[in-house]
Amino acid sequence: MTALGDNGPTLIIGGGIAGAYLAALLGSRGEPVTVFDSRPDPRKASDGEGRSINLAIAERGLAALRQLDGVVDTIEQLVVPMRGRIVHDGHVSGLQPYGNLPSEVLWSVDRTALTNVLLDAAEATGKVEIRFGQRCRNIDFDLNLVSLSDAGHGDQWYQVPFGTVLGADGVGSIVRSEILELNGGSIRKEMLDHRYVELEIPAGPDGSFQMEPNGLHIWPHNDFMLIALPNPTGDFTATLFLAAAADGPSFAALESAAEISSFFEENFADFAAMVPDHVEQFIDAPLGRLGTIRTRGWSFEDQAVLVGDSAHGIVPFHGQGMNLALESASALNAFLLQHADDLATAFAAFEADRSDDADAIADMALENYVEMRDKVNDPDYLLKRQLSLLLGERLPDYFRPRYNMVMFSAIPYADAFARGDQQADLLAQLVAGCDTIDDVDLGAADQAVLALGPLPTTP
Amino acid sequence: MTALGDNGPTLIIGGGIAGAYLAALLGSRGEPVTVFDSRPDPRKASDGEGRSINLAIAERGLAALRQLDGVVDTIEQLVVPMRGRIVHDGHVSGLQPYGNLPSEVLWSVDRTALTNVLLDAAEATGKVEIRFGQRCRNIDFDLNLVSLSDAGHGDQWYQVPFGTVLGADGVGSIVRSEILELNGGSIRKEMLDHRYVELEIPAGPDGSFQMEPNGLHIWPHNDFMLIALPNPTGDFTATLFLAAAADGPSFAALESAAEISSFFEENFADFAAMVPDHVEQFIDAPLGRLGTIRTRGWSFEDQAVLVGDSAHGIVPFHGQGMNLALESASALNAFLLQHADDLATAFAAFEADRSDDADAIADMALENYVEMRDKVNDPDYLLKRQLSLLLGERLPDYFRPRYNMVMFSAIPYADAFARGDQQADLLAQLVAGCDTIDDVDLGAADQAVLALGPLPTTP
Repeated sequence: MTALGDNGPTLIIGGGIAGAYLAALLGSRGEPVTVFDSRPDPRKASDGEGRSINLAIAERGLAALRQLDGVVDTIEQLVVPMRGRIVHDGHVSGLQPYGNLPSEVLWSVDRTALTNVLLDAAEATGKVEIRFGQRCRNIDFDLNLVSLSDAGHGDQWYQVPFGTVLGADGVGSIVRSEILELNGGSIRKEMLDHRYVELEIPAGPDGSFQMEPNGLHIWPHNDFMLIALPNPTGDFTATLFLAAAADGPSFAALESAAEISSFFEENFADFAAMVPDHVEQFIDAPLGRLGTIRTRGWSFEDQAVLVGDSAHGIVPFHGQGMNLALESASALNAFLLQHADDLATAFAAFEADRSDDADAIADMALENYVEMRDKVNDPDYLLKRQLSLLLGERLPDYFRPRYNMVMFSAIPYADAFARGDQQADLLAQLVAGCDTIDDVDLGAADQAVLALGPLPTTP
Repeated sequence: MTALGDNGPTLIIGGGIAGAYLAALLGSRGEPVTVFDSRPDPRKASDGEGRSINLAIAERGLAALRQLDGVVDTIEQLVVPMRGRIVHDGHVSGLQPYGNLPSEVLWSVDRTALTNVLLDAAEATGKVEIRFGQRCRNIDFDLNLVSLSDAGHGDQWYQVPFGTVLGADGVGSIVRSEILELNGGSIRKEMLDHRYVELEIPAGPDGSFQMEPNGLHIWPHNDFMLIALPNPTGDFTATLFLAAAADGPSFAALESAAEISSFFEENFADFAAMVPDHVEQFIDAPLGRLGTIRTRGWSFEDQAVLVGDSAHGIVPFHGQGMNLALESASALNAFLLQHADDLATAFAAFEADRSDDADAIADMALENYVEMRDKVNDPDYLLKRQLSLLLGERLPDYFRPRYNMVMFSAIPYADAFARGDQQADLLAQLVAGCDTIDDVDLGAADQAVLALGPLPTTP
């Protein structure tokens, strides 16, 4: 039986959000940790190197971040709250609120800013050393050695002894490929046929916002969509999701500036008006891939475990990838506390606990793409949504929209997924034949909702 | 049907030996090529950054290099010829020649020096552009785009259009992982329990060699071995192959300076005397892994193909990894000429032609480890070897030691492997009951050899 540190140093490979957060958690309870990241220190990046890419922090992410003293207070200064969706569909809708409660908001935050706060928090524990520009090349589990190379020195490798490796090295994880060769695990990747590009809606005069700042803007178009999240600096980060190649609109079909220009004019006229250089931005932006990675075999004996995107990569349409990663890292820390003298058991219990939840949010994130691009302006969808918010208000212990369970609670994803299926069947029955909310038989609805039993609980 | 260039630029991912050689071949017949390599330009590396790591060029490598004007002449200035083995086994043996012919020598060359010659040759064609510090991150086969990142810019990706991607990006190939997700291929890795470290035997006074320069030195020890190859600068690059962890000697058992010192004193006393800082060198040297990678599915439609270590990684004990890579790259070029208007057919024909040969040399390289560390000082082995050289002299069209077919001919590896098995059975019969070569019935031996039929031929 092995505890952290018994057989050598604890190393975290990857200093992104999951790795930095886990380092801060371990460091704050006195565990010495060294983090290796292949990239340069983001806190020292030259100004203006890249656009801000933002993420939505939801309740699961917040619950994880609250475990670090002062971090949420710091982050709160860096975010823009989003209270609901705003749909651009010829005209601009009012805010469709995410929930009934003031706490049911999402926080739009710049990815790098969040990472930097977590890196600072990790270092502030005094137990965490972070080495940047160091790429993990392989892991020797017989000899407990990690091979690394320094960004400045090409192919020169060196080795560092370890007791435990925590693999927070993202979708292209080296730690994952090393352990899957040994533990008989598996990996399954499913790539979408759609791609994305990120574009910037600049701030207006004096740093003002050109649109309502406290919402997530969506331009739904059935087979493609544009979204935009606010930044505290007055600009928005927009993302266009579109088929790679298709009979209809696609990235492949947008070759010339004229084609791009008329595509935006036709589909996103208000966006185009706010972003004078949208054609140039579109041409320069790298295309992102979208995929789901499901793995089995997250650990190898008492020597290594995966956390974050290296274990489970999901598509971004539920805004939950980072929240999932933080919740998983928090769970890993809890299992390490519970089985402090038995790492192998802690790792196995962690995967057993988290893999169904990771699968559930992976599926829900895929489903949400269809919802966002195709349903948010559909009358039947909007009626069901209105009814579900109403039922949640009438019977808050018995009904809660699935979206809200995912975003604004810490109910396990798998439970939210299952409950969401039951509720969806029920909503379909209740709105059958109804045109407006006034047509719905609320007495019968209450009875049916009560028959589902109380909502799943947070562990 | 697609030819090179039809659907966009031809890109080579990886500017190591295979990638640079293939670029030079394509460039020399007028095909424009862009090479991307993740490392800095080795020709601009700061002096003394690393020890020289050497390779043995054998006939297959030479045959490939001869296709580039002037390259062999340039390389000849940079090599030390090795005419046979010298065994250190308490005393130092005389040279055990590799063959009967003056051409049957190996060329010891520094890996970086060879790479640099090939990079120069590629650029000299005027058709090849090489971009260093550019890491391939993924490939979008729907849109014909390769995503890359620049070493100086962390996570900033950009994209380059392609018609054809040639994946020469080595054992950790990104191109391979991208195409195996699409083509239903497979990868199998078998790692050895042994590891290696590289050590330097310095030159003597005035750049003199401390040992016979024109041979490959071996210190065989049954379960482990040391070898050394000469460099033109008077030093030798030595490699210690040893179990990672074992009951007997192993890297895991060599922890303290005292343990390391007595291990070398006991097993490699003459080496230790020539290398005063061998303990410090041993402690500082990174441990290398040894493995075989066999893949199926080297290509994806007419868009991408693997060449070199990305398709087939072998252990170094036959000194054939680089020779295999060059021979394969040359074969790929030949198939591209033969099926110039049909890349998909060229790629499929290339794999069909080469995969059995790659498997055969992978197996022979594994077998040769046992031969080198365990047999080179064994009387029975030496008698068979003596008889096989003699039979090769008596009936050169009917008998040739397998080692010589592999090293000094271009007979397909698979044919050499099969013929080697037949010959090994025959040698075992012929030396049964014999103590010296004088006991062997040469008349019967000749008859048996003739009964095998003529040697396999070079295509």
